[in-house]
Parts: sequence; structure tokens; C-alpha cells
Amino acid sequence: MKIENPNPIQWQFSERAQQLQSSFIREILKITQRPEIISFAGGLPSPATFPVERMKAAYDKVLSEAGKVALQYGPTDGYGPLREWIANSLSTEGSRILPEQILMTSGSQQALDLLGKVLVDEGSRVLVETPSYLGALQAFSVYRPEFKSVDTDEHGLVPSSIAAVAEGARMLYSLPNFQNPTGRSLSLERRQELVETCARFGIPLIEDDPYGALSYKGEPMPKMVAMNPDGVIYMGSFSKVLTPGIRLGYVCAPLPLVRRLELAKQAADLHTAQLTQMVVHEVVKDGFLDQHIPTIRKLYGDQCQCMLDAMTEHFPASVTWTKPEGGMFIWVTLPKSIDAMKLLDQSLAARVAFVPGAPFYANEAASNTLRLSFVTVPPERIREGIAVLGKLIKDML
Amino acid sequence: MKIENPNPIQWQFSERAQQLQSSFIREILKITQRPEIISFAGGLPSPATFPVERMKAAYDKVLSEAGKVALQYGPTDGYGPLREWIANSLSTEGSRILPEQILMTSGSQQALDLLGKVLVDEGSRVLVETPSYLGALQAFSVYRPEFKSVDTDEHGLVPSSIAAVAEGARMLYSLPNFQNPTGRSLSLERRQELVETCARFGIPLIEDDPYGALSYKGEPMPKMVAMNPDGVIYMGSFSKVLTPGIRLGYVCAPLPLVRRLELAKQAADLHTAQLTQMVVHEVVKDGFLDQHIPTIRKLYGDQCQCMLDAMTEHFPASVTWTKPEGGMFIWVTLPKSIDAMKLLDQSLAARVAFVPGAPFYANEAASNTLRLSFVTVPPERIREGIAVLGKLIKDML
Repeated sequence: MKIENPNPIQWQFSERAQQLQSSFIREILKITQRPEIISFAGGLPSPATFPVERMKAAYDKVLSEAGKVALQYGPTDGYGPLREWIANSLSTEGSRILPEQILMTSGSQQALDLLGKVLVDEGSRVLVETPSYLGALQAFSVYRPEFKSVDTDEHGLVPSSIAAVAEGARMLYSLPNFQNPTGRSLSLERRQELVETCARFGIPLIEDDPYGALSYKGEPMPKMVAMNPDGVIYMGSFSKVLTPGIRLGYVCAPLPLVRRLELAKQAADLHTAQLTQMVVHEVVKDGFLDQHIPTIRKLYGDQCQCMLDAMTEHFPASVTWTKPEGGMFIWVTLPKSIDAMKLLDQSLAARVAFVPGAPFYANEAASNTLRLSFVTVPPERIREGIAVLGKLIKDML
Repeated sequence: MKIENPNPIQWQFSERAQQLQSSFIREILKITQRPEIISFAGGLPSPATFPVERMKAAYDKVLSEAGKVALQYGPTDGYGPLREWIANSLSTEGSRILPEQILMTSGSQQALDLLGKVLVDEGSRVLVETPSYLGALQAFSVYRPEFKSVDTDEHGLVPSSIAAVAEGARMLYSLPNFQNPTGRSLSLERRQELVETCARFGIPLIEDDPYGALSYKGEPMPKMVAMNPDGVIYMGSFSKVLTPGIRLGYVCAPLPLVRRLELAKQAADLHTAQLTQMVVHEVVKDGFLDQHIPTIRKLYGDQCQCMLDAMTEHFPASVTWTKPEGGMFIWVTLPKSIDAMKLLDQSLAARVAFVPGAPFYANEAASNTLRLSFVTVPPERIREGIAVLGKLIKDML
């Protein structure tokens, strides 16, 4: 049956494919999944928070009552009742979001890919925070933009620094709440200034908000999309408040853009599983998240505090770190003399893992930074791991 | 909270986004979902074939036994046991497929998008059949190739016509079994000639095979990937043998390519839902498809025959059509004087829908062609609808 002596294919990949790189985080995760390793490297939510029984009951109900619809092809824009629920949850008194503005996506990551596809030509200027979310840099990179890093300080993105890089920018990508990787949040004043600055320069502002609900004090900040619905693109996800493995996110965009995103999604994967959307709607429609999210906040808040306390105890005075009020990450700045990549070599040998900060920078990287996640590690292991890191850092000084 | 008088955004879309068009089929589907319309337009499998109870039991089992794993982030390449099952199902005596060659995708459509992303630069030559699958043309179009149509005759793609367009081709996209839209299948000799020709010119050959299992006589043809595993990229899907709404497909490719596709998928949507993959593995692992697929073949085969009989009775002699031996579609060629788009206007007024053939051509279109699907329409409605079409065609002559 086989043909004889075929010529081997000389693979010719597209220019964009030649620069594709695996996420450094996903590579680290592979070596840190062994149980003996204390891993602060993950970006995974804690499985202790997954409402498995509730999900199971919802799958059973949807398949029993509407199995043939749930398992058939569905509309590209998504399941109507869920889009309506999302639009309502994003609407405020002064700013009404329409269900037509919501496009359901296969996780937030797909929204990033679609935004790159629809807004970025080769060489287009894309503005990102310093540092920014690695998955976004990866998604946009495929479309070969020119990244310009916008300055940040201890309070996050500095809006006054946008003017210098605004010209021709196709978008500004921001994570205003408990940012990945720094854990920082923008103040209300900064948000307003950011929205105003982008509007003044006509730059579409992307508000990526996977962690916004995870405010330990339970007081989420106002959304930027409410401040300028015609200029802000909001991205949401069920990964951090429900479960990530179902791959369900959404983007809320002004109508001219959402229509293009929908066409791009049609070409990319037709639609996101109808069953998943119907199940999530079944789970959230009666206010379940209002009871469920506080349990996640409590768990993450306690573990964050545990890590912060351990850092105060074990890290030398020359190390600084953020004090997040929500989300999943703490950002550490080491003395300039220490390269986090070298620290990682040593800490892996001592069975503690984290993610070095360099891959989170679109341009010039600060090699003395690193990201710690505390959400999947129990308190005694947090203390143990931080003590190990503290000792290694002191030894390197 | 809202900022005052923001400048409206002057949306600047990427060049690729400016040419995005909605699938003509999906547009037609919107107007043909009213129950009074007899629709031969759909490409949807019959929901009568969906094994809802079996799926429900599998969701229950997977969530009960491994809920926290199924709902967590998973690996980009997919769920190991399912990839192994697929690799085994594709392996033949002479040609072993490795699990590492399988990348799980969010439906076959995503495999098309990833192949375009990884293999096509602007202006790259892409070879397609005449006519070809509309969803593939859409997916590849995003990456702005130069499409070259390869000749076909009543037996499908003509391999000897490849030489004239082979130079620099990045891939040849083919649907060898019960092709969408024509219902044609390639003979064994044609398959071998096609594989040899592509190998001779060093052109990666894509074998898209969503319908291969749906042979009415129950004898699937040999796969081209078995004839040259290093040069053929095989695409499979659970949409037509299980259910489409779960969005689960896969691509089997030589290792250098599958690794790139995996990186592209990581940037596009991280991974396909682990839960879906575990459920499908649970459903298929013990041979369920061997009992289930024959029931789909029987249903579709009977309805296909019903439509063919009705066409013989009602269509004038100047109309010709394919006689599929599997799959979901019949392709009709009208006399040159009749534009299928005009026929559609009249048939919609008479409450019968189909898809005109023109959108399936990458280059010069034959406007006197159309595609009929019989799988979701009961026999008496098939006869009624074909009688209406026959009368309209006679009136137009």
C-alpha cells in the first residue's frame, strides 16, 4: 500500500511559524509537576475551588432536557441566554452593554488570538504594560507586531507615558486587576486617566480581567469598559471563578469590532461548544457565583497572606515584592546582582519552583524579577518553600 | 463614572480582517431554520444519530471519577489516552502512527486554521480541489494565499493536473471521501497517484476526512496517510460519527509539523477542553463506534437513495448529479443557462432551500451548480422538496 521511496518533504513554514516559541511557563510546569517539588510556578487555579458536583448536576440536566440541541452545531457568537447574562453582569447604571456585543470564545486565550488577527498587521504598533501577561505576548506575536512597552511604577501602568508611544498604536493591552504577573491593580484615578488618554489618542483599550472578581476584600474596582463603552474592549473568563478546563471566555467589544471578531472566530473554529455554554449558564444563572466566589477569595487571600508573612520573615531587606489585594500572584524584585534564572537553577535543585520574570517583558527585561503563585500550595509548604528561597537568595548575595 | 465626550475610535482593522466574509452557508442557514422550510442547505449531521444517553453517562462517570483533573487546565497536545486511541485507529500493518503525531483540536475547523497559520505566508500557493470545502477556503483565506484550483472530473481530483501548478505550493488540500460539497470519492488508483504526485513535487498533502466512516456499504477506503506517513497530514473529527457540538477534532502530522501546530495552538487557545476529550475517550474506548456508525450509515444511505430516486423522477434530463456512496451531500449540475443563485430565490419563495455551488470554488466558479444535503430531512419531505425543485428548474428552462 505504501508508495516507494517518497521524497522527504522539505518543510517550509510560514514566517510567523518560524518564530513560534513554547511558553516558558508551560515548559517549567512540565518539570514541576512532580509531587516532591514545591511549585510556586503555576498559573493554575486551585482545584479545591472547582464546584464539581454542581457542574455534574448541570451536565446531567442540560443533556437530559436539551441534549440534541446542546450536542448540535451552534451559532458562532455563542449561546444567547449566556451572552445576555454576561451583558447584564457588565452593564452599569450609566452604561448599558448589549448581548450583541458579547462573543463567546474558547477561553480568554482565543480572544487574544482573535484580537491579534483582526487588529494587527505585520509591524503594527501594540502597546503593552511592563511587564505584561506572557500568554498575550505569545498570542499577539503570531501577527508580528512592534511591541512598545508602556511604563509602570509601583501602582501599575503610568498613563502619562502613553503619549510618547501612541502614534499609530492599534491597541493598548492592559490587565487592571491583580495583574498577571505582578499582582498590581490600578487605582480608580489611574483607570480614568488611562481610559481618557486612550480615547484622546483614539487607541482601542483592551481590559483583560480574569482576576477582577478575586478581590480578597470583596470590593471589585469599577470596570474601564463602563467608563467608555465605545473605546474599551473587555475580556472575561470563567476559568478563575468556575473552572479553567472547560475553556470558556468571552470578549465584549463595540459592534464594528465584535462583528469582525465573530467572522474571524467562524474561520478559526466555527463556534465554542454549545453544551459547555448551556452548562455554565445553568450553573451561574441563579446567582451561584455570589456564594462561590467568596470561598475562592478566602482561600487565596489566606494563602497570599501566609506567603507575604513568610517573605517578611525569610527574605533579606534588599528584596522587594508587591502586596496584592486579590488574584493569584506576587511579583518579586531581587537585588540587581541576582539573575532570577540562576536562582531558579539552584531552587529547582532544592525542589522549589517559580517563574523568572524575564519572559513577561515585551522589550527590555528585568532579569532580577520573578513571579510567585500561592494558590495551589498549602500554608506549611508555602512557608517551607519561601524559607528555601530566602536562604538561596542570602547565599547569592 | 463615564468619561466625557470621548473621541470615537476610527477602527483600523488588519488587512486580513478587511477581507473576512461570513460563510454564505451560515447566512443561508439563518433563514432556513424556520420549520415550514424544507432545507437541503444544511451541513449539520442528523440529531437523530446523537448518542445522548451514552454521552450523559460518560460525563457523569468522568466527573465522578476524575472531576478535578477533567476541569483543570490540560496539555496543549491533548488527552494522552485519546491520542493513543486515535493513533491506533489510524495505524495499519505497514504504517505505524505514533500518539506524538496527534494534536487534538477544537473541531476540524481549528486544524484548518492552524495549518494555514503555520504553512501559509501572504501569496503562498495553496492547491485546492475544484470545487472544495468552503470552510477550508475561509480558514486559509485569512492568511492570504494564492489559491490554485486543481482540475477534477466525475471521479474527483485529477492528479495529472497537479504538475502545472505544483511550483512552490505549500500544500494540497483534499477531501478524498464523500467530498463536501460534491459527495465524490477518489478511487484507490487515484489516491495512490495523488500521494505519489505530491511526494514527487514535495508538496504536503492534506487528507481531510470527516466523512470517511460514513460509507453506506460499510467499506471505508484506505487512507492516504498510510501510503506516505511522512508526507500526508490527516485530519479527523468526531463531529459526524458522534456529535458536532462538542467541537472535537484532530490532526495527525509528521513530527516536525505537528510540533509547530502545537505551538500555534498554544497561542490560539492553550488547549481543547480536557473534560470533552476524557468523555469522548470514555465513549469510544470499548468499540462503541463499531456498533454506532452502521446506524448512521443506514439512515443516511436510505435518505440519499430516496433523494436520488426523487431526482430521477422529477429533474429534467439536462440536469446531472453525483451518486454518492457515503457522506452527506449530492452535487447537482444544472444546464449552463440556469444560475443556481436565481433558482435559490425562487425555491426559497416556494419554501425549499439549498446551497448554490459558486462559493465552493476558490477561483472561477460554475454558477450552474448546487449542493443538496439529505441527512436531516425525512423521506416524505425529501420527495416533496425535490418535486418543487424539479418543477422550478423545468419552468426556468
